[in-house]
Amino acid sequence: MSLLPRLSFNQMTADPWSLEQAVRNCSASGIPYIGVWRHKMGGDAEKASAMIRREGLRVSSLCRGGWFSAATAEERRKRIEDNHRAIEEAALLGAPVLVIVSGPANGQTIEDARATVLDGLLEILPDAEKAGVTLGIEPLHPMYAAERSVVVTLKQANDLADRLSSAAAGVVVDVFHVWWDPDVLQQIERARGKIAGFHVSDWPVPLPGIFMGRAMMGDGVIELQKLRQAVDATGYDGPIEVEIFNEEIWKSADEKLLERIQKSFLEHV
Amino acid sequence: MSLLPRLSFNQMTADPWSLEQAVRNCSASGIPYIGVWRHKMGGDAEKASAMIRREGLRVSSLCRGGWFSAATAEERRKRIEDNHRAIEEAALLGAPVLVIVSGPANGQTIEDARATVLDGLLEILPDAEKAGVTLGIEPLHPMYAAERSVVVTLKQANDLADRLSSAAAGVVVDVFHVWWDPDVLQQIERARGKIAGFHVSDWPVPLPGIFMGRAMMGDGVIELQKLRQAVDATGYDGPIEVEIFNEEIWKSADEKLLERIQKSFLEHV
Repeated sequence: MSLLPRLSFNQMTADPWSLEQAVRNCSASGIPYIGVWRHKMGGDAEKASAMIRREGLRVSSLCRGGWFSAATAEERRKRIEDNHRAIEEAALLGAPVLVIVSGPANGQTIEDARATVLDGLLEILPDAEKAGVTLGIEPLHPMYAAERSVVVTLKQANDLADRLSSAAAGVVVDVFHVWWDPDVLQQIERARGKIAGFHVSDWPVPLPGIFMGRAMMGDGVIELQKLRQAVDATGYDGPIEVEIFNEEIWKSADEKLLERIQKSFLEHV
Repeated sequence: MSLLPRLSFNQMTADPWSLEQAVRNCSASGIPYIGVWRHKMGGDAEKASAMIRREGLRVSSLCRGGWFSAATAEERRKRIEDNHRAIEEAALLGAPVLVIVSGPANGQTIEDARATVLDGLLEILPDAEKAGVTLGIEPLHPMYAAERSVVVTLKQANDLADRLSSAAAGVVVDVFHVWWDPDVLQQIERARGKIAGFHVSDWPVPLPGIFMGRAMMGDGVIELQKLRQAVDATGYDGPIEVEIFNEEIWKSADEKLLERIQKSFLEHV
């Protein structure tokens, strides 16, 4: 059975495109889902939602909430408020999932920062439940531990989801972030029923950079089919987001990009 | 009690220096240990050993063995032979520890590559036991999983050491590689009696690069004292190697470098 009905285009794969361009291009290419970023909505989630639906697309997720840790209580309070806004935006957009990137330690010890992440999630959870938005806790690759996320393994994300113990708390599995983990298959199985999103790209060798190093599926060493099958084996049948941060792709993003993604997706995922 | 009697200078911290220059500079600065790399010995480990001892230094470790995985059986055989040579060189040099960097998957699946690492270690272990050289299994940061090491967590290294179950099998804890790990403190405690080396540097923010991104102790976010105390709490009282790969340090390596290392070491480790 073709996976194309599950394909979602995460719009940061083509940062030069406006949200409207991305949606229209997806619509013209028959891509059914789009993953949206908050800063691309021009501050009006309802308008973005209407435009996306007008073009016949569905939203797979909104990026991103999280970023809980900070050096002062006041700053941590602001982070919580921003997460409340993110949940509201997700609801207005009709995004079933708000992707949670936990944030770096930001002046806390890594242990304290991890506790702050749990506290923050517990605080925003009731809001997510009311809004019908799932918090998709995404572990990031450990190379981002200092700058993006103190949550760096799927085990941590599963532990957090277990602590939240709510239908509005799940995990997001991104192959780029988890493929190296000796426990990844066990932790995917453990995430059964809690998988709120599945993201694909590839890890090229050599990796051209830390933040912009991802590659098109098939252009790297990640065993994509093995991971996708493990995720599917848990019963997950939701959208599969293609999320690639790569400057070459940004520079050359044209109408052929989506066809290239569809081909690589079919061949390698 | 000062840690200076435990300070070891890993010579790749100053790649432009020859082994003899590194040894003389350490001797002149009162640094008691040096960590040696095989390609710096000019093919004569005995001569290197005599020179090091003449200058009053001791060797903390030899880098490196490992790199077991390969696409063909013939190539894997060559890797084993190279490890036999590395053990012999360590013995001739008087290095108590051969640092093992497992190597990337090199065309195998990551699971098969990990099995190949265990097989390789089991095969070279009797040789290490005879030679009185400890195989120091070093987990590398997961960002090197594709290019340097399929062993990426201290848990994996401990599991391997347990499987080898020999006084000639231990683990090397390098803070740069393990600081992000939610289980690092438990795994350090689990390594009690098996710690064959402890390496320090720091993780700067932002990280300037993947292979040359390490910083001087204190110039990053790693909680060095916490990790060092955890290692010491296991009873480890051996050398602490400063191993920094950083182009700026390479370019500017002069007689002041070792004093700078001693100061940072005293203040931050």
